[in-house]
Amino acid sequence: MLRRGSFSLPEGVIYLDGNSLGPLPIHTPERVARMLREEWGAMLIGGWNGVTRNGAGWMEQPMKLGDRIGRLIGAEPGHVTVGDTLSIKVFQALASALAMTDRKVILSDSGNFPSDLYIAEGLMGTLGQGHSLRVVEPEAVADEIDGEVGVLLLTEVDYRTGRLHDMAGLTARAHQAGVLCVWDLAHSAGALPVDVRRAGADFAVGCTYKYLNGGPGAPAFIYVAPRHAGSARPALSGWLGHDAPFAFERSYRPGDGVARMRVGTPPVIQMAALEASMDIWDTVDLQELRLASIRLTERFIAGVEATCPDLELASPRHPAARGSQVSFQHPEGYAAIQACIAQGVIGDFRAPDIMRFGFTPLYIDEDDVDAAVAVIARVMGERLWEDPRYRERGAVT
Amino acid sequence: MLRRGSFSLPEGVIYLDGNSLGPLPIHTPERVARMLREEWGAMLIGGWNGVTRNGAGWMEQPMKLGDRIGRLIGAEPGHVTVGDTLSIKVFQALASALAMTDRKVILSDSGNFPSDLYIAEGLMGTLGQGHSLRVVEPEAVADEIDGEVGVLLLTEVDYRTGRLHDMAGLTARAHQAGVLCVWDLAHSAGALPVDVRRAGADFAVGCTYKYLNGGPGAPAFIYVAPRHAGSARPALSGWLGHDAPFAFERSYRPGDGVARMRVGTPPVIQMAALEASMDIWDTVDLQELRLASIRLTERFIAGVEATCPDLELASPRHPAARGSQVSFQHPEGYAAIQACIAQGVIGDFRAPDIMRFGFTPLYIDEDDVDAAVAVIARVMGERLWEDPRYRERGAVT
Repeated sequence: MLRRGSFSLPEGVIYLDGNSLGPLPIHTPERVARMLREEWGAMLIGGWNGVTRNGAGWMEQPMKLGDRIGRLIGAEPGHVTVGDTLSIKVFQALASALAMTDRKVILSDSGNFPSDLYIAEGLMGTLGQGHSLRVVEPEAVADEIDGEVGVLLLTEVDYRTGRLHDMAGLTARAHQAGVLCVWDLAHSAGALPVDVRRAGADFAVGCTYKYLNGGPGAPAFIYVAPRHAGSARPALSGWLGHDAPFAFERSYRPGDGVARMRVGTPPVIQMAALEASMDIWDTVDLQELRLASIRLTERFIAGVEATCPDLELASPRHPAARGSQVSFQHPEGYAAIQACIAQGVIGDFRAPDIMRFGFTPLYIDEDDVDAAVAVIARVMGERLWEDPRYRERGAVT
Repeated sequence: MLRRGSFSLPEGVIYLDGNSLGPLPIHTPERVARMLREEWGAMLIGGWNGVTRNGAGWMEQPMKLGDRIGRLIGAEPGHVTVGDTLSIKVFQALASALAMTDRKVILSDSGNFPSDLYIAEGLMGTLGQGHSLRVVEPEAVADEIDGEVGVLLLTEVDYRTGRLHDMAGLTARAHQAGVLCVWDLAHSAGALPVDVRRAGADFAVGCTYKYLNGGPGAPAFIYVAPRHAGSARPALSGWLGHDAPFAFERSYRPGDGVARMRVGTPPVIQMAALEASMDIWDTVDLQELRLASIRLTERFIAGVEATCPDLELASPRHPAARGSQVSFQHPEGYAAIQACIAQGVIGDFRAPDIMRFGFTPLYIDEDDVDAAVAVIARVMGERLWEDPRYRERGAVT
């Protein structure tokens, strides 16, 4: 499972933040340099439709990359495309779903990433049709699915606690009630096996800069279930989602299937970086990854609980109920994380009191877990978080 | 004016398509490699707020780059930000403008880039409030501005003919009639001096992969006039447009000024490439650039008209009435452009019969113009476009 040699990690660092920004794959600089010099530099506009060394022009890359990501989330080939940012893709999926129902309630939970809720607010304001957003506790979602709800908008893995929703179960329940489902896989893709097809998701979206190592600002992805792909209305109807972008017709005609969810010119340099990381991900067995991830998180929880009585587990205790991260709560969590970072263990902090650690079996192993536990134990045991240097709040950790 | 050494151009090529995709600046690969290895690779998540060699974290780059572009379009400092694609930025600007007026008509022209019109269609459909899109001939725009029109949505330079709208005059006329103006500067930024402030534009948007050499998929930009910046409603209300993105509040509160037009995670690798090209653009005097551009286009028109009686000028004859491109019409324009490309003169074709040539004084000079004219004259005079190889239609030229 371990492919540490495939990633560039600074010496002396245990990186438990690959759930926020995955590290650099070692082949990415070479792939990006090749894109710049041999494709952009040498082919110029010919890069769009010419044949690059990767066998396809830039214009085809969003669908080709979509299929490579599709394997990781259980999507049918040809039903995922990449581009834009996750917030944009949430907007597209939610707007399309709302256009398929007369019901006015969007149901989400307090564990959803705030941007998903912000995007829903903005969309409701734009629609001006009396929609409302019902935000409940994660545990209450199943019971809140009723005949008023039009769309269920959830992130499968809670960004703070790592709590994992039962995607298949909630989707089935939603469908019984005539509710469409939009799943955000930001903390799922590359973290654990996902099967959007079997779960029956109507739409799914996600990002590629966390577990998938696409780099800062890597493009997002969107999946539209085949049963909707030919009828979904793309609210962001840009030219690259047009059936014939280069015919420059006066009116919009949506492209074939999920391709209509493309909007503008794809980010070719970011896509080159994503290709390099997908070269690694193409070879990963997700069941094996999940087993390794569970071994790591179980070991981490046991280690921290044995040595840090002040830290309270904020993640579900049962491994089947969480993604690939572990969070602990502490009133001085911010300073404690800064102290850990200063000791070479990189985790992050999420307000108000969450210390968050991501586990990524491609470059983190048991020895890293033990070393990280030892550092955290020292930070907590020696109250290193009392150091004023660690208590000054920067903008983000 | 000429800075040919700043760009990487293939041997034996005269590149008259920098209005579609600008060529690679020679320092871009080095800057991008540095970003990958020294920032992403070494700083990991610290890159977002840490101090990179450029003096700022990735999180600040969209506003820093916005100011550098702002100089080229006459924007007040702090009122331009970069990100997403131009289609997304058109959506944001148009949605914000429509939210400021009760009128239901969007006025545009047939010279607008189709994606702008597609985005308007999609937005109207999403709004479902009886908006309509009135598309008139470019010459008729001024007379069509009336009390029914809420927003005037125009591209300053026509992508097919290069015809240049009178931005200041049309904006003044629109304002007199109570109409808001959204200007698309895709073919203006880096092509000629623009002064959004003096023209009184309400919103302006543009892309950076054409004249500005940011690379394929380079981010777009958006300008919001200071008088609207504190009240504009961002329809795409993503977390990075929130006043406190990392507070993870439950509800959206728009950020300060144009920063609210940020949506999701910025494309850091593409921004590094854009920084490298802006290092060149920071030193360019736009008045001088315009004079050089006019010298080149005048010389080109005179040369082609003297040698190619079959080609009909599709661009305005007066240089003050066009941008930095020249187009000719010919029924066999597609094949003729393919023949030119085969002879090393890269222009492009736009349906139904437009042969398009862009002039970029940073890397094109009078000798290039003369050499290009000679090639075009040979292609037309010897009817090289009759060669079947040039008549097969690929997806795009």
